[in-house]
Amino acid sequence: MKLKESINMSNDVYSELMSRLEQSEDEMIQLRRHFHEYPELSFKEKNTSQYIKNYYQGLDCTVRSCGDGYGMIVDIDSGHPGPKLALRADFDALAIQEDNTLPFKSKNPGVMHACGHDGHTAYMMVLAKNLIAIKDQLKGSIRIIHQPAEEVSPGGAKSMIADGALDGVDNVIGIHVMSSMPTGAIGYHLGESQTGRSDFTVKFTGKGGHASMPHLSNDAIIAGSYFVTALQTVVSRRIDPFDTASVTIGSFDGAGSFNAIKETVTLKGDVRVMKEATRQKIREQISQISHGIETTFGVKAQLDYDDNYPVLYNNPKFTEAIIKELKQAQIPQVTQITDFGPQDPSEDFAYFAQKKPSSFLYVGCMTDDGANHPHHSPDFLMNEKCLLIAAKAAGTATVSYLSDFDK
Amino acid sequence: MKLKESINMSNDVYSELMSRLEQSEDEMIQLRRHFHEYPELSFKEKNTSQYIKNYYQGLDCTVRSCGDGYGMIVDIDSGHPGPKLALRADFDALAIQEDNTLPFKSKNPGVMHACGHDGHTAYMMVLAKNLIAIKDQLKGSIRIIHQPAEEVSPGGAKSMIADGALDGVDNVIGIHVMSSMPTGAIGYHLGESQTGRSDFTVKFTGKGGHASMPHLSNDAIIAGSYFVTALQTVVSRRIDPFDTASVTIGSFDGAGSFNAIKETVTLKGDVRVMKEATRQKIREQISQISHGIETTFGVKAQLDYDDNYPVLYNNPKFTEAIIKELKQAQIPQVTQITDFGPQDPSEDFAYFAQKKPSSFLYVGCMTDDGANHPHHSPDFLMNEKCLLIAAKAAGTATVSYLSDFDK
Amino acid sequence: MKLKESINMSNDVYSELMSRLEQSEDEMIQLRRHFHEYPELSFKEKNTSQYIKNYYQGLDCTVRSCGDGYGMIVDIDSGHPGPKLALRADFDALAIQEDNTLPFKSKNPGVMHACGHDGHTAYMMVLAKNLIAIKDQLKGSIRIIHQPAEEVSPGGAKSMIADGALDGVDNVIGIHVMSSMPTGAIGYHLGESQTGRSDFTVKFTGKGGHASMPHLSNDAIIAGSYFVTALQTVVSRRIDPFDTASVTIGSFDGAGSFNAIKETVTLKGDVRVMKEATRQKIREQISQISHGIETTFGVKAQLDYDDNYPVLYNNPKFTEAIIKELKQAQIPQVTQITDFGPQDPSEDFAYFAQKKPSSFLYVGCMTDDGANHPHHSPDFLMNEKCLLIAAKAAGTATVSYLSDFDK
Amino acid sequence: MKLKESINMSNDVYSELMSRLEQSEDEMIQLRRHFHEYPELSFKEKNTSQYIKNYYQGLDCTVRSCGDGYGMIVDIDSGHPGPKLALRADFDALAIQEDNTLPFKSKNPGVMHACGHDGHTAYMMVLAKNLIAIKDQLKGSIRIIHQPAEEVSPGGAKSMIADGALDGVDNVIGIHVMSSMPTGAIGYHLGESQTGRSDFTVKFTGKGGHASMPHLSNDAIIAGSYFVTALQTVVSRRIDPFDTASVTIGSFDGAGSFNAIKETVTLKGDVRVMKEATRQKIREQISQISHGIETTFGVKAQLDYDDNYPVLYNNPKFTEAIIKELKQAQIPQVTQITDFGPQDPSEDFAYFAQKKPSSFLYVGCMTDDGANHPHHSPDFLMNEKCLLIAAKAAGTATVSYLSDFDK
Repeated sequence: MKLKESINMSNDVYSELMSRLEQSEDEMIQLRRHFHEYPELSFKEKNTSQYIKNYYQGLDCTVRSCGDGYGMIVDIDSGHPGPKLALRADFDALAIQEDNTLPFKSKNPGVMHACGHDGHTAYMMVLAKNLIAIKDQLKGSIRIIHQPAEEVSPGGAKSMIADGALDGVDNVIGIHVMSSMPTGAIGYHLGESQTGRSDFTVKFTGKGGHASMPHLSNDAIIAGSYFVTALQTVVSRRIDPFDTASVTIGSFDGAGSFNAIKETVTLKGDVRVMKEATRQKIREQISQISHGIETTFGVKAQLDYDDNYPVLYNNPKFTEAIIKELKQAQIPQVTQITDFGPQDPSEDFAYFAQKKPSSFLYVGCMTDDGANHPHHSPDFLMNEKCLLIAAKAAGTATVSYLSDFDK
Repeated sequence: MKLKESINMSNDVYSELMSRLEQSEDEMIQLRRHFHEYPELSFKEKNTSQYIKNYYQGLDCTVRSCGDGYGMIVDIDSGHPGPKLALRADFDALAIQEDNTLPFKSKNPGVMHACGHDGHTAYMMVLAKNLIAIKDQLKGSIRIIHQPAEEVSPGGAKSMIADGALDGVDNVIGIHVMSSMPTGAIGYHLGESQTGRSDFTVKFTGKGGHASMPHLSNDAIIAGSYFVTALQTVVSRRIDPFDTASVTIGSFDGAGSFNAIKETVTLKGDVRVMKEATRQKIREQISQISHGIETTFGVKAQLDYDDNYPVLYNNPKFTEAIIKELKQAQIPQVTQITDFGPQDPSEDFAYFAQKKPSSFLYVGCMTDDGANHPHHSPDFLMNEKCLLIAAKAAGTATVSYLSDFDK
Repeated sequence: MKLKESINMSNDVYSELMSRLEQSEDEMIQLRRHFHEYPELSFKEKNTSQYIKNYYQGLDCTVRSCGDGYGMIVDIDSGHPGPKLALRADFDALAIQEDNTLPFKSKNPGVMHACGHDGHTAYMMVLAKNLIAIKDQLKGSIRIIHQPAEEVSPGGAKSMIADGALDGVDNVIGIHVMSSMPTGAIGYHLGESQTGRSDFTVKFTGKGGHASMPHLSNDAIIAGSYFVTALQTVVSRRIDPFDTASVTIGSFDGAGSFNAIKETVTLKGDVRVMKEATRQKIREQISQISHGIETTFGVKAQLDYDDNYPVLYNNPKFTEAIIKELKQAQIPQVTQITDFGPQDPSEDFAYFAQKKPSSFLYVGCMTDDGANHPHHSPDFLMNEKCLLIAAKAAGTATVSYLSDFDK
Repeated sequence: MKLKESINMSNDVYSELMSRLEQSEDEMIQLRRHFHEYPELSFKEKNTSQYIKNYYQGLDCTVRSCGDGYGMIVDIDSGHPGPKLALRADFDALAIQEDNTLPFKSKNPGVMHACGHDGHTAYMMVLAKNLIAIKDQLKGSIRIIHQPAEEVSPGGAKSMIADGALDGVDNVIGIHVMSSMPTGAIGYHLGESQTGRSDFTVKFTGKGGHASMPHLSNDAIIAGSYFVTALQTVVSRRIDPFDTASVTIGSFDGAGSFNAIKETVTLKGDVRVMKEATRQKIREQISQISHGIETTFGVKAQLDYDDNYPVLYNNPKFTEAIIKELKQAQIPQVTQITDFGPQDPSEDFAYFAQKKPSSFLYVGCMTDDGANHPHHSPDFLMNEKCLLIAAKAAGTATVSYLSDFDK
C-alpha cells in the first residue's frame, strides 16, 4: 500500500488543489452539461473522445489513444520518482430517450447520459488539469484513464488493459455517482463489491410441424420452457445459500404461428456472482442442464457461454487507507462516509481491479428534494454538486498517495 | 336422407353427365393452371373471384356475392320441385413461395396454391357448367358455393352462412384433394372426421427490471415457462384417454435483452378436439391454469380465447349413401373407395356440416411416381387426373340425389 | 370363423340347453352366494378351487390343474369331430372389506368378491354341467378355463397358457358382468376393447444431507418432481392425439424428515394403451426422460419396466358372428345388445385373446333400482338375474359354434 | 456492555481459576465419558438430568428445575452486587447408532452423543464447581443453564425462557465444540451467525381413482410435483441474491399403488434464513404458491407453517469484547482465534440470544490425525482436549465479566 498514514491538512499542495477545484466547479458543470447534451452510444463516442482530447491540448501531459474503441490515456508525470496511480472515468451513454425539460437535454434522439458518465468525465478532466498545475509538488505519476463503452460487454476496459493501460500502474481508483445516495455521501465496500457477470445463449432445435400433429414434431417451446424451470434449481439447490448468485433468462425468443409447432427457440441468460468459484459451478450446471434437456426432449441444444465481467474487488487495505484519508480530510461538502454494501450490478472497472489493487467509490448525487431518479431511467437526474465532491475525493486520495510517504 | 337406393346406371342423364365431364377434362386442367399461376391470399382473392364470376356469364344460373369476402353463390334450378344440394369449393392460396419448375408456376411472389384449392375450384366450375346443361333432367336445385379464405380463421364459410349460403339447402358436399392418397382413390370417414379447433392468446405481465436484481422484478418468462409445463396436464391428465385432444403453444414471444427481466410475454396456443365437450373442458382448464399461474407467480394473465372451427362431422347416413352410390357407379378412374380415418387438421367446411347433414370426401392426387409432395409445402404437386375424378364423384352424387327418388 | 350362419331356433339341442339353464338358475345363485361368502385373494384361492373341482366329480369330463396357481381346465368332449371352443371364467376376489348387509356377506375379513368373479364362476359351472348333459348332440369339444388371479399382474392367464390351456383350442369366449349396464343388456366391442398395461418403477438416487446445505447434497425429491412434470409430455406431445394413452405416477415414495435432503425416491407408474406401437413408443420415451433427468440433475435413475397386460383384442369376425347369433336367438331376458365402446381398465383375458381369435362380452348386472354400486367398491352389488343371462349368452354361442356348420 | 477493557493477567482470581481447571481436566473427561456411555434422546434425558443435579449437591449454589423438560438452572451468587452472566450447555443426544470401538461407547442402542453435548455439559459442570469455589472474589452472579432437547424443534430453550431462565440475566454465553476445526482453535462470528429456521407441511388433496381413467380423478402427485418445481423460484427469483435463503422439501409422502391415482400427498419443507425479513418473504411466497397450485390443478392445499428457530445473533460488541479478552488472555492451549463465518445449521441458543445480548463460540475438537468425524454421524469423535479449552474460554470470559469493571 502506498498511502501514507495521514495527510498533513496544513499541507500546502493539498490546500492548493482543494482551492483550485472549488474555483473550477462551474467548469465541471459546464463540461458535464456539454456531454449530457451530446451523448454517444458505447463504442461510438467519437465526438466525446475528440472533445476530451482537445481539452488536454497545451497542457503538460501526454495523451494517447488506447484500446479498440475511443479510449484515451493521459499521463501526468511529477518529474520525481514515485508510484503511479491511475484514475478512471468512463464516458459512454445509453440507448434511452431522455424524458425531462433540462435546458441541456440530450440532442441525440434515443441516446441519453442516464448513468452519470457525463459527470464522471467532466470532474475527471477538471481534476486532471488541476493536478497538472500542481504536479511538481507531487511525487511519482498519475494516469487518467478515459474509458469508452462501459455499458456493453465486453466493455472498453478489457482492450485498454490489453493495450497497456495498466503498464507500470500501481493502483487504480474509480468513482461512480449514485442517485440512491444523498449528495454529500461517499460510499465504499471492502472486498467483493459488485457482481461478476456471465452471459449465455442456448438454442434448442427440435422439429417443426403442424400443431394438430405433435407426435410428428418435436416442440422446441416445450424444451425451452422445461429448461427454464429446471434452471431455477441452479440457484435454489446447487449454490451455497451463503453465496450470491442469480441466473436470469432475459430473452425467450419463440415467436411463431399459433398453429405450427416451433422448430427452434433461442434463450439468452444472465448470470451474476460474487465469487469466481460460483461462476464456474453455475457454468458447469447450466451446461449439464442443457445436455439433460437434449436427452429428455430429444432436441439439440447449442450453448454459447461467455464469462465476462469479473467480480469487482476493492482491495481492502488500499480502500481502507483511502477511506481513512477521506475521513481525516474532513472535506466540507462530504456529510458521511459509509460502507454501502455490495451492489447487484456489474461494472467493467472490475477488469482494472482484477489486475491492480484498486478501489471503486460511490459519490451520492441524489437531488435535493430526495426524489427517485434512478440510473438507466429516462428521468435520471444528477445533483451537480456531486461533481466537486467527486473531484475532491479523488484529489484527496491522489495527493495523499503522491505526497511524501513511507513505503 | 334424400339419396335414392341406387342410380340406374343405364340412366340417360347420368351417362350424359359422365360423358360431358370426360370431354371437359382439359378445360378443368386449363382452369386449374390459370388459378395456380395467379394465386391470391385469403380474403384477397379479388381477381380469382372475378374470373369465376365471368365464367358463369351467359349460363342459365343465378350468381350472387355472399359473405364478407369474395365468396359467391351459383344457383342452378332444375325447374322441378325437389331438394337443394350444395356443392362447395374453396379458392384461396397460401403465403408460400413456390419451389418447382412448372410452366404455370405462381407468378405472385410468396403466394402459392399449395393446398389444391385451385383444383377444387376448377373441377367445380366445369361440373357446374355441365350440370346446368342437363338440369332439366334433374329435380330440385343445386347450389355451388365458391368459398374464399379457407386457410385463415375465421374462414370464409362463417360469413357466407350468415349471409344465407345455406338457406333452403338440404345437404352439402365438399371434396378435398389429398396428396398422400394415390390418384384413383376416394376416401371418406363417418361422423367426426377432422378436428375442431380453438386458439388462444395469453399475455403474462409481471414487472421488468435489471437481471441482477430478480427480487425487485417479477419475471414474465418464468410465468410463461411454468404455464407451458402445467399446460401439458390438460391433455395428459384432464381428458379421457379415449378422446382426441391436442394443445400446442405455437408461439412464445419473450424476446428481450439478456440482462433485463422481461415484464411481459405473449403466448399463442392451438387446441384440437373431436368433441365439443372436450373443447369446453379444455377451455375451462386453460382458463383455470392461467388463473393459477397468476397466483403462483404474482403476475397478471390476460387470456383471449376463441373457439373457431367446429369438428367436421360427416353425417353417417348421408355419407354412407353417397359412398354406396360411388361404389355402385364403378367410375372407371376410381380404383378404391376407403375409410380414410379421422384427420388431424381442421377444415372450415365444418361450419357447413354443423348446419346441414353434409359429407366431405377426399380424392387422391398423388403423383404417379408416388413421391411425397405434401400440402402446404413449397413443392406441393397435384396429379391433375384427380380433377376428373373429383368432378365425376361430385357429379355422381348429385345426379343420384336429384334423380327420381323416395322421400 | 367357425360360427355357422344362424342357429335353427327350433333346433332341439339349443332349446334343451336353454330350458335346462332356466331350471338351474337357482343353483347358479346358490353357488355364487357360496363363493361370495368365502372369497379368497388372487393366487390364494385354494378352497374355491377345491370347491369347483368337487363340483365336477362324477360328471363326464376331464379335469386337470393348470398353471402356477389354482387354475383348472375342464374338457368336455362331444365324441364327434369338430372344433374346440374355450369358455373362461375367473374366480379370485379383492382385498376389500365388504360393506353391506347381505346374508351371504363375506366371512373373510378384508376380502370381498367386489368385481363379480363369484358370478362368473357360478354361471360357468352350471353351464358346464348342462353342456356335459347335452354334449352328445354337439360336435367338437368345449374347454372350460377356471382361472385364478385375474386381479393381479401377472395374472393367472399367463401361466395357464404356458401350461397348455389353449392347446388345440380354436376360439375363446369370456364374459364379465358390468354393474354400470342395466341387467338385460349385453355389451360388446370389436377390435381393441380394453387397454393394454405396462408398469414401471423408477428410483432416483442423489446424495442425502442436511437441509441447510443443499449445495453439498443432491436432492432426489427435486429429480423425482421434475421427472413427473416432464413425463406429462409423453401423452401430451409424443403420442398421436387419435391414439389412446395414459401414463400415471401412482406412487411417489419420498417420505423423510423435513430437515434432511432425500437421497432416494422411488416412483411407480402405470401405462395404458390401445396399440402395441403406442406401448413401445411410451416405453422408449419414459426411458429417454429418465436418462435426461439423470443428466439434468446429476442423479442416478434405475428404471424397471414391465410390459404386462396386452390390449384386449376382440376378433371382429368372431365377435360379429357371436353377436349375430345372440341377436337372432332373441333370448327373452336380453333387452339390448349394444356396442359398449372401448373400456379403460385392462383384463388378463387379453392373454387368451392374444393367442386365439376371442371375444369378451359384457353382461349388465345393475340392480333394479339403478343405483350405483361400482366394481372394486365395498358396496358393489350384483343383480343375480345376470347369471342366467350370462349362461344363456355363452350357451347360445357354444351351441351355435358346435352345431352342424360349414367350415 | 459489561466487559471491562482487559483482565489483569496477574490477577489472582483468574490465575486461580485457570489453575483449578487444569487440575480438573481429568474430571471433565470422566464426566463426558459417563454421559457418552448413557446418552438420552431429546426431552427424555431423565437420568442425565438427575446425574447433573446430584453433582451440585452440597455445593454453594441454588439448583432448580426449569422449563417443560429436564432443564435445570444453577445460580451462583458472589455475594457482591454486580451483573448476572448466564452460561448455557445442552445435554441431549441423537437417534444414531454409534459406530466405533471406544471403551465408553454408547450403551443405549440407537442413541448417541454424536453432536458433542456430552462434552458441553461435562466442561460446564466442572467450570461451575470451580466458579463456586472462587465466587467470593467475583462480583455479581453466574447462572448455569443446563438445557435439554437442543436437537428437536421447539427445543428446550424456549420453555426454559418462559420459565424464567433469563430473568435478571444481562448476557449469555454458549459454546459448541466443532469437529471441523482443529483442536486449539476458537471460532466466532459477529452478528447473524447461524440460520433461522421455519418448517411447514403442505397437504394436497385431489380425488383418487383408477390409473386408467385420469380424467375422472385429480392427481395429487401431479399437484405436489409441480409445487416442488414452482417452489424453486422462491430462492431463485424472489429473494435478494445477497441474502441467504434455502427452501428444501425434505419429505414427499405420496406412496401408493402404481395403478391408482393418489388422492393426497403430504410434503414437508424446511426453510433457512439469515434475516427475519427474508423469513417473512418466504412464508408469504410459499403460501401464495400453495394457493396457485390449488387453482392450477383444482386441488385443496392445507398449509401448516411454523416459524421456529430465530437467526442466531451474536451481539457484536459483547462478542468483540469477549474475543479481545480471549486474545489477551493468551491461554496456552489456544492456538488461534478466528472469525469462523456464518454457519448453515440452526441452533436453539438463538432463543437466548434473541432476548439478551449473547455470544455463541466454537471450540475446535478435531482429532489429532485431522480425520473427518462429522457431527451427527455414527463415527463422530471428539478430541477431549477441547474440554479444558472450552472451560478456560468460558472461565476467562466469566472472570473478566465479573471482576472489577466500569459500568
